[in-house]
Amino acid sequence: MTSRDILHMRRAIALAARGLGGTSPNPVVGCVILDPSGEVAGEGFHAYAGGPHAEVVALREAGERARGGTAYVTLEPCNHTGRTGPCSAALLEAGVARVVVAVSDPNPKAAGGAAVLREHGVVVDEGVLTAEAEEVNAAWLTYVRAGRPYVTWKFAATVDGRSAAEDGTSQWITSPEARADVHRLRAESDAVIAGIGTVLADDPRLTARVPAPLREAPVLRVVVDSGARTPAAARVLDGEAPTLVAVAEDAAVPAHLSPHAVRLPRVPGGIDLRALLAELHGRQVVSVLIEGGPVLAGAFLREGLVDRVVGYLAPALLGAGAAALGPAGASTITEIHRLEFAGVTPVGPDLRLVLRPKSSAPQSPKES
Amino acid sequence: MTSRDILHMRRAIALAARGLGGTSPNPVVGCVILDPSGEVAGEGFHAYAGGPHAEVVALREAGERARGGTAYVTLEPCNHTGRTGPCSAALLEAGVARVVVAVSDPNPKAAGGAAVLREHGVVVDEGVLTAEAEEVNAAWLTYVRAGRPYVTWKFAATVDGRSAAEDGTSQWITSPEARADVHRLRAESDAVIAGIGTVLADDPRLTARVPAPLREAPVLRVVVDSGARTPAAARVLDGEAPTLVAVAEDAAVPAHLSPHAVRLPRVPGGIDLRALLAELHGRQVVSVLIEGGPVLAGAFLREGLVDRVVGYLAPALLGAGAAALGPAGASTITEIHRLEFAGVTPVGPDLRLVLRPKSSAPQSPKES
Ligand SMILES: NC(=O)c1ccc[n+]([C@@H]2O[C@H](COP(=O)([O-])OP(=O)(O)OC[C@H]3O[C@@H](n4cnc5c(N)ncnc54)[C@H](OP(=O)(O)O)[C@@H]3O)[C@@H](O)[C@H]2O)c1
Ligand SMILES: NC(=O)c1ccc[n+]([C@@H]2O[C@H](COP(=O)([O-])OP(=O)(O)OC[C@H]3O[C@@H](n4cnc5c(N)ncnc54)[C@H](OP(=O)(O)O)[C@@H]3O)[C@@H](O)[C@H]2O)c1
Repeated sequence: MTSRDILHMRRAIALAARGLGGTSPNPVVGCVILDPSGEVAGEGFHAYAGGPHAEVVALREAGERARGGTAYVTLEPCNHTGRTGPCSAALLEAGVARVVVAVSDPNPKAAGGAAVLREHGVVVDEGVLTAEAEEVNAAWLTYVRAGRPYVTWKFAATVDGRSAAEDGTSQWITSPEARADVHRLRAESDAVIAGIGTVLADDPRLTARVPAPLREAPVLRVVVDSGARTPAAARVLDGEAPTLVAVAEDAAVPAHLSPHAVRLPRVPGGIDLRALLAELHGRQVVSVLIEGGPVLAGAFLREGLVDRVVGYLAPALLGAGAAALGPAGASTITEIHRLEFAGVTPVGPDLRLVLRPKSSAPQSPKES
Repeated sequence: MTSRDILHMRRAIALAARGLGGTSPNPVVGCVILDPSGEVAGEGFHAYAGGPHAEVVALREAGERARGGTAYVTLEPCNHTGRTGPCSAALLEAGVARVVVAVSDPNPKAAGGAAVLREHGVVVDEGVLTAEAEEVNAAWLTYVRAGRPYVTWKFAATVDGRSAAEDGTSQWITSPEARADVHRLRAESDAVIAGIGTVLADDPRLTARVPAPLREAPVLRVVVDSGARTPAAARVLDGEAPTLVAVAEDAAVPAHLSPHAVRLPRVPGGIDLRALLAELHGRQVVSVLIEGGPVLAGAFLREGLVDRVVGYLAPALLGAGAAALGPAGASTITEIHRLEFAGVTPVGPDLRLVLRPKSSAPQSPKES
């Protein structure tokens, strides 16, 4: 592996990132093609499910210059014929001599591209910038490896952890810039989830008010509501985006909820959250955003189902009022949920913190 | 003002910062001397009260090269004869032709250096990098301008604002690196203050376990204890450093506290905090560190007496347990205490946040 390999793969990863929010249920993928002299001849990324794969876009730009050249791909080229033909075949046809891969395809349906390329005499180097390429595809890799959507919990609070003042008022703790960033987070997710407590208290719309990336379906809204209490007039039922109301198996579902209701097992505290995620996985939901409230977020955390925390901290103090996070199963210090900071960025006057569980490798599926 | 002026003044400010923690009740000051050709001939800073002033140190290094040269000083050269002679005289004697000043001296006893220099034909340019130079001297400028010590509140918490788990355990939320940083904060302060609640709950020593800078007196420990309940066996009374126990005027003071007790007016909630700060100002305490707990910190904040907040956030979540900050007089969102981030630094795995009130100009004294 040379420093030029790293350079080109880093560029391919940056290209891949442009697809975030558009490609579900597909991964994001980026590709850079060099001609035999080492000049960049083509670049591409996968922009939306059903659209051309990164390799195909890059090969199209490279044309005949790809022959005898090198391809950098963030994910092992697919070998299956889905809505588009296999990328391994496209690379062979273009006469590429060497393929450099960051992450091997964990998807049994698609894997095997590297082997086919090698059989046809192409040099395949795997494992270049794997960690960075896994990072950009964290949601999809969790979806494939753990068999459930990638879960992000977002919260907004003062530096002392308050999401509202003592009297319940909270508009606005964070800045317009931070709130715009939340809309971007939503647009990048396949589904947003809120607890019935939040729906009853705030009546949120849960839609992304930013131009959505090219995606097949609008962001799904999910209410976790074991007692089927979501009111007919709730904004989440306004028809602007599809809405799913997760109710308990034994709930009496009113007529206005029946088009939305999905019945799931009941556990102490409400709906079985693993069953909810399995249901969403079955609907090809790759990533979900937990919008709150504190009780629901605490339950996801307690169950070990949070892959990423995005916190917006306002440079402000309240000293009283609702906490951003409710009971999360830690009653003594040894039960604390340890994470690590994965990013700290100013957003307007506020701070955006990204945290990940300490072992960031996607977990294997547990019984749901 | 040229870009070379800015360069040399920035260096002088960096020199000044080396004196932090050592110079109380004096300001920190840095000085750079250029020879007539513009070469750096001498550098100096004020290291401890009673020690030589920055200008004198720099002039000593420059020797004859200072004649006809330029002096950059972060604070207007003093004109009074204290334990050392006036710096204005030293600069005149050395034959310096031009003096560049960042901050004019707000101290009536010391001011006038610039005028004297001008009277003797020296070119004096004021106002170069004033904001940066005020920043490094924020504590001393508050002490002089507002007539009270500069108040820093430090806290340690999870990102959801918890300082302890539900059962009260809290060792350790933050890392050894963050805890070492707190010792450095203490060593830079003239006094640390804790509420009686913290003394009774945690029995802290409140000493700085790092090599102290050259300072005249060890860091003063202060307990805010209107009822004079500090036990004889409390570690704050161990004699390792002087301790002051602020009790109410009407308190019955037990014998073990009488060498430490200072009587102050009572207000609802405890001791009058402005009277406490006035008392400390009278004892030449330039800067204090509020070590907690949440109730005392909330009271300082409510009174508008916090100049700086230093928060250590661990990448962890608890969801329950004691909050870092107690009631601070904000019951609705419009009463929120707005600050601004003045620094965000990783400290080991944790994050160190520095916040300042939005209008960071030191307030003028209020009736105490
Ligand atoms: N600052 C922020 O970022 C933010 C974001 C959102 C909300 N909020 C605030 O949060 C408050 C409402 O939050 P909340 O905590 O009371 O309610 P919540 O978290 O929105 O909803 C909790 C409810 O969800 C239902 N639920 C179903 N299955 C569950 C499970 N497995 N675990 C936990 N809950 C489950 C339960 O009700 P059933 O038993 O009826 O199913 C439970 O009471 C509002 O005041 C809102 O303003 C703040
Ligand atoms: N994580 C951290 O950074 C941190 C730091 C320190 C402490 N702590 C925790 O905080 C807890 C104790 O804190 P706490 O909040 O209960 O007590 P505290 O803030 O340490 O002390 C509060 C007491 O100080 C006295 N006081 C006197 N004048 C006051 C005034 N003007 N305003 C407010 N208080 C005044 C009052 O008692 P009188 O009426 O008797 O005078 C009051 O009850 C402990 O559990 C400790 O572990 C955490």
